[in-house]
Amino acid sequence: MTDLSRGAAWMGGQIIPIGDAKIGVSDWGLIHSDITYDMVPVREGAFFRLPDYLERFHQSMEALRLDVGMNGSEMQAALHAMVAATGLRDSYCCMVASRGPCVVPGSRDPRDCANHFYAWCVPFIHVIAPEVAQRGATLQIGKTRRIPPDSVDPTVKNYHWGDFTISLIEAKESGFDNTLLLDHQGRVTEGPGFNIFAVFGDHVVTPEWGCLEGITRRTVLEIAAVEGLIPEIRDIPAAKFMQADEIFLSTSGGGIAPVIQVDDRVFSNGAPGQISQRLATAYLAWTRREDLIEPISYSA
Amino acid sequence: MTDLSRGAAWMGGQIIPIGDAKIGVSDWGLIHSDITYDMVPVREGAFFRLPDYLERFHQSMEALRLDVGMNGSEMQAALHAMVAATGLRDSYCCMVASRGPCVVPGSRDPRDCANHFYAWCVPFIHVIAPEVAQRGATLQIGKTRRIPPDSVDPTVKNYHWGDFTISLIEAKESGFDNTLLLDHQGRVTEGPGFNIFAVFGDHVVTPEWGCLEGITRRTVLEIAAVEGLIPEIRDIPAAKFMQADEIFLSTSGGGIAPVIQVDDRVFSNGAPGQISQRLATAYLAWTRREDLIEPISYSA
Repeated sequence: MTDLSRGAAWMGGQIIPIGDAKIGVSDWGLIHSDITYDMVPVREGAFFRLPDYLERFHQSMEALRLDVGMNGSEMQAALHAMVAATGLRDSYCCMVASRGPCVVPGSRDPRDCANHFYAWCVPFIHVIAPEVAQRGATLQIGKTRRIPPDSVDPTVKNYHWGDFTISLIEAKESGFDNTLLLDHQGRVTEGPGFNIFAVFGDHVVTPEWGCLEGITRRTVLEIAAVEGLIPEIRDIPAAKFMQADEIFLSTSGGGIAPVIQVDDRVFSNGAPGQISQRLATAYLAWTRREDLIEPISYSA
Repeated sequence: MTDLSRGAAWMGGQIIPIGDAKIGVSDWGLIHSDITYDMVPVREGAFFRLPDYLERFHQSMEALRLDVGMNGSEMQAALHAMVAATGLRDSYCCMVASRGPCVVPGSRDPRDCANHFYAWCVPFIHVIAPEVAQRGATLQIGKTRRIPPDSVDPTVKNYHWGDFTISLIEAKESGFDNTLLLDHQGRVTEGPGFNIFAVFGDHVVTPEWGCLEGITRRTVLEIAAVEGLIPEIRDIPAAKFMQADEIFLSTSGGGIAPVIQVDDRVFSNGAPGQISQRLATAYLAWTRREDLIEPISYSA
């Protein structure tokens, strides 16, 4: 049997090693980033909130007018079979829909492309390394501004990361763990692969505009309500943000990570804040809730 | 011998059929559109202005901090060898530099990726079909606004086309040939794969801001000066643009194409304008200038 422990992909009904999973150099998913995706976490042998991720993925495909000829149940089955084949108990699992190659030679019309679905999974990737989440992350506000929603809709999960990547490199070169982008109105938006939260007293606030409507973000808002805190979705101007009592970020790639510094402003005395830690612990418990997980049937 | 008449790619020193040219599904060039490229036209068996395209490509790689470990002469040789192998006398020829896959498992640091160069070519693709260029193209102003330069720098040639693609689909559904995007200040920028020009009397004007500094755009500006016209690079508010005597577009994928309609405004009485046609003819002559071309040594 092929060793799939480094990851696998589902392509055209076949499960193949991740190293063999490739797409053509003239696929519009690559040459026009005309593609959408979603990433669902697999923790301890189970998908977390898979129906929610699949629903968002379908909304993204609809917004981009992609028709890959598969329904949600078929995708769900493909994801289960793929992760099961790898034996990975903790996995970073992606579903992807691409515009595909143009099937009319020389055409420049997106409607002439053969849309296609594929999926791939690898051992779990933490957007913020666990040791960084433990001590609390440091973020640098990027020089680039987040691509505005009337250019590219951030609620349709996409690979347009040029604004993130250059600021991420600059942040790392300046000794920060990661970057956070403002919009053109100076409001906080999101970072590469994460939503951001500011805690003011018992108010847990996350930006309304210019960012992905993260499933983990949604989970955090739900947890906050259950925990007797006040969840809020609203604009956060950078100056207001800097006055928060605590900052944390949320990502499907690892859950909640406290933030202890943004630029030269130190938060919660340079240690993870109490509410951030409380929510992080609760999030971990939620990822084991039987009504929110789908166990994977591993063959071995 | 393998038939390469449908196109070929240069990857890691090998020339392979275009259908075999693929990149990995977790390459950052794909999953973060962390990639730059350039497209140089091959017409009648020769590259046009290849040193200029290579120079811009190097500037793009530098801006994105990509190091693919090859110099310009090596790339030039790869492009020549690749196109020669296909036998294509007219080719759409791309050079690409990608951030590559992360070589540190689980890393989210772009500096941990193995940057790589590849190239591919196919039979010539016209951004505007020749029969459309002949009668004059119709453009619809898109609902999306062009991604602003302080988010993603448009002078660094990139695959962030989400703003273009959705407006291109809408334009085609409304019966237009293509789309043209404004910036957030309401100024004209560019379309998917082309720069735009407005003619006012003997002034030939193209936007300064928010667009690619096209090599064909540069060629048009040079031709205009030689032709006794007045080339200008400056902002063009949409209202001013609509008052132009003629509109045309420029692209490395086919040269100059007259535009006869933008939204419901008909230009130059619904036929290609005189200055547009004069420049299109001159452009064709320039693509044969011995000091601007590099003939390809085909083996057969």
